[in-house]
Amino acid sequence: KPRKRKPLPPQAVNSVIDGLKRLYVEKIKPLEETYLFGPFHSPPLTPSDFDSKPMVMLLGQYSTGKTTFIKHLLKREYPGAHIGPEPTTDRFVAIMQGQDERSVPGNTVAVQADMPFNGLTKFGTAFLSKFECSQLPHQLLDHVTFIDTPGVLSGEKQRTMRSYDFTGVVQWFAQRSDLILLLFDPHKLDISDEFKRVIGALRGQDDKIRVVLNKADQVETQQLMRVYGALMWSLGKVLNTPEVSRVYIGSFNDRPMRAENTPLGAQLFEAEQNDLMADLNDIPRKSVDRKVNEFVKRARAAKIHAYIVSSLRARMPFMGKAKVQQQIIDNLEEEFDKIQREHHLPRGDFPNVDYFREVLQGYQISNFNKLNPKLLKNVDDVLGIDIPDLLHKFRNPYD
Amino acid sequence: KPRKRKPLPPQAVNSVIDGLKRLYVEKIKPLEETYLFGPFHSPPLTPSDFDSKPMVMLLGQYSTGKTTFIKHLLKREYPGAHIGPEPTTDRFVAIMQGQDERSVPGNTVAVQADMPFNGLTKFGTAFLSKFECSQLPHQLLDHVTFIDTPGVLSGEKQRTMRSYDFTGVVQWFAQRSDLILLLFDPHKLDISDEFKRVIGALRGQDDKIRVVLNKADQVETQQLMRVYGALMWSLGKVLNTPEVSRVYIGSFNDRPMRAENTPLGAQLFEAEQNDLMADLNDIPRKSVDRKVNEFVKRARAAKIHAYIVSSLRARMPFMGKAKVQQQIIDNLEEEFDKIQREHHLPRGDFPNVDYFREVLQGYQISNFNKLNPKLLKNVDDVLGIDIPDLLHKFRNPYD
Ligand SMILES: Nc1ncnc2c1ncn2[C@@H]1O[C@H](COP(=O)(O)OP(=O)(O)OP(=O)(O)O)[C@@H](O)[C@H]1O
Ligand SMILES: Nc1ncnc2c1ncn2[C@@H]1O[C@H](COP(=O)(O)OP(=O)(O)OP(=O)(O)O)[C@@H](O)[C@H]1O
Ligand SMILES: [Mg+2]
Ligand SMILES: [Mg+2]
Repeated sequence: KPRKRKPLPPQAVNSVIDGLKRLYVEKIKPLEETYLFGPFHSPPLTPSDFDSKPMVMLLGQYSTGKTTFIKHLLKREYPGAHIGPEPTTDRFVAIMQGQDERSVPGNTVAVQADMPFNGLTKFGTAFLSKFECSQLPHQLLDHVTFIDTPGVLSGEKQRTMRSYDFTGVVQWFAQRSDLILLLFDPHKLDISDEFKRVIGALRGQDDKIRVVLNKADQVETQQLMRVYGALMWSLGKVLNTPEVSRVYIGSFNDRPMRAENTPLGAQLFEAEQNDLMADLNDIPRKSVDRKVNEFVKRARAAKIHAYIVSSLRARMPFMGKAKVQQQIIDNLEEEFDKIQREHHLPRGDFPNVDYFREVLQGYQISNFNKLNPKLLKNVDDVLGIDIPDLLHKFRNPYD
Repeated sequence: KPRKRKPLPPQAVNSVIDGLKRLYVEKIKPLEETYLFGPFHSPPLTPSDFDSKPMVMLLGQYSTGKTTFIKHLLKREYPGAHIGPEPTTDRFVAIMQGQDERSVPGNTVAVQADMPFNGLTKFGTAFLSKFECSQLPHQLLDHVTFIDTPGVLSGEKQRTMRSYDFTGVVQWFAQRSDLILLLFDPHKLDISDEFKRVIGALRGQDDKIRVVLNKADQVETQQLMRVYGALMWSLGKVLNTPEVSRVYIGSFNDRPMRAENTPLGAQLFEAEQNDLMADLNDIPRKSVDRKVNEFVKRARAAKIHAYIVSSLRARMPFMGKAKVQQQIIDNLEEEFDKIQREHHLPRGDFPNVDYFREVLQGYQISNFNKLNPKLLKNVDDVLGIDIPDLLHKFRNPYD
């Protein structure tokens, strides 16, 4: 049963994000808790999930210039950064705003409630020891958190070198990122098996992906065109979307362009770099939109989940519960169909049957909560009234 | 039974091609005729099939500059050329060496034994009236024949506008071409359904394909990079080969480059144009290689065909021929297996079963010729002795 909470004071709703936070605590979280949304979907949101800065993740083969790219944007190295021609960055690093310069180890970061990284504990300590948070005071970091990553490896056998689920971790960050930069350099174009798995893990996040063809001044123009063409040729197949990913061609570091290749460089690279900066500047605005969007998706999922759980509960008889429970588990697909029809719910928004069945096996359906119309009305209010009101009142603060 | 022919005088074998021609007439054609290779595969080769100049076919949407490209190479228009912003070229045009300038209609061209276009009759007069041969005296045409084509149309409904099998005709020319240029321009990038079918018809000829991104000076550099990237993105999916097609970026006409976009143009486009010219100059040499290669393929196919036909003939009983014929037709796949094992033939070189069955239905197997070891030895000699000798003696005249 939902615990009673004191409502937040109205003046706290001073921005869209605060509004969402309040709606969540007052109207969505109680429903999630009543119907066990957490174990079936994802843990309840914490304040840090709302407050977290927009994230930009950099991915690419080793030595394509990911760490240098971040250094270029910050105009300095972040604490703990390593730059070099061999695979250097051996961990995931979250580069965040902080009053002092320091590097916090992953195991510590993951348990801090005010950091948006609690969810990473599921990847185990083998991963957490390859994760750290690098803090420094920097104006840019007021608006954006960067995720630097270890270079993607080439060659199938290298896969065994990872002591943790690399692809899973990338996916976790990708879902929470606002922009994903895929870095290539003219001498490192091949898309290895690990890279393919990584790109596969980005499915559904395609609109966040930007491709950077870095170190473009390292080769002469004709060569660059070959390289760029080959990159697009294979990316089109790997990403497999009809929309072409935006590619930025340039050299993102502080050193001057290589003189031999400047006729193209001076003109093109500068324009490309400006475009990429504009794209980065646009992130905070888009991040608010994304948060609203994900909030709406979560509210819808929680509503459907509540109907499923309470409907299954209603199917339980007074006697012979175990048998009916087994029937329900066996015919879960049909149960979903019935629930969908009865409550006129969109089938596409239903959860994955197999995963739901697996979790269900750990519960007694007869212990589930019954349908509580008031809790469901709350969600409908959020979706139909509160969020539109909120957007109308505050607009996007970045607009 | 093979008719007796006077052998060509040895001095006629003064080049690889003449050597092939002689080997064909003396050692392959008799076998082909004995075992009806023509109806089951393709008509006997004529002298013009050997003597025909290397062909370069231009394909692309309307107005991408195909006709202008040919004009640019010849430094003049060919008789009957039309250039303009709307769909202009409404027919296939073979641009060939000739003493006088003239335009010969397709129906006439197709029946001329000294022209390599007899095979086109199978596309009917609806096509032949959309085909012509444009002749003019020109040094370049000593080495190459160009095939100008009507622009590929966009929009599914346009398909009905063709009164003939456009894709089939493209395929016919593609098989006989040494180079296939796919032209795009920055404003005509989309690969329509007809274009997809056309590209599909080029399957197996991938190594002949070169892509030309024409009119590249019409857009500024950043735009050009977008356009080029998008082209490679979709071409990679449509051509579906791991090898990246060579793309030439430039503006292939006589007008000066557009000044605003010259920094890239002057450098890059010139280098690209030079590369493409080098590729074109290389055609005669490659064409000889291709002809040898295709000759070998044909000889192998004729040999396998002879084994099939004579083996089926050997299966026929004295009585009850009709029943056995039907059994053979029904179990043709197994018959092929048996023949393959018995004579140690490569399975991959066997003809398509279904097509073979279809043709077979029009014949009495009992009327086929029996195995003639001497005819088969001839083919083995050609493959094992004569052709290696020929290549040793003459090399490629262009090497
Ligand atoms: N734009 C650039 N032009 C030329 N050299 C560059 C550029 N960016 C980075 N480099 C050089 O490339 C090498 C690799 O850079 P960096 O360490 O930033 O790559 P990385 O992608 O972070 O690699 P890893 O995955 O191993 O961490 C360094 O020697 C760096 O100086
Ligand atoms: N490299 C170029 N730069 C600028 N304009 C060009 C270029 N090549 C051709 N054009 C112009 O584009 C138009 C179409 O040219 P052209 O008729 O050669 O195209 P096409 O591909 O043969 O078209 P169709 O398929 O209709 O025969 C003409 O107006 C021509 O002047
Ligand atoms: Mg690094
Ligand atoms: Mg034309």
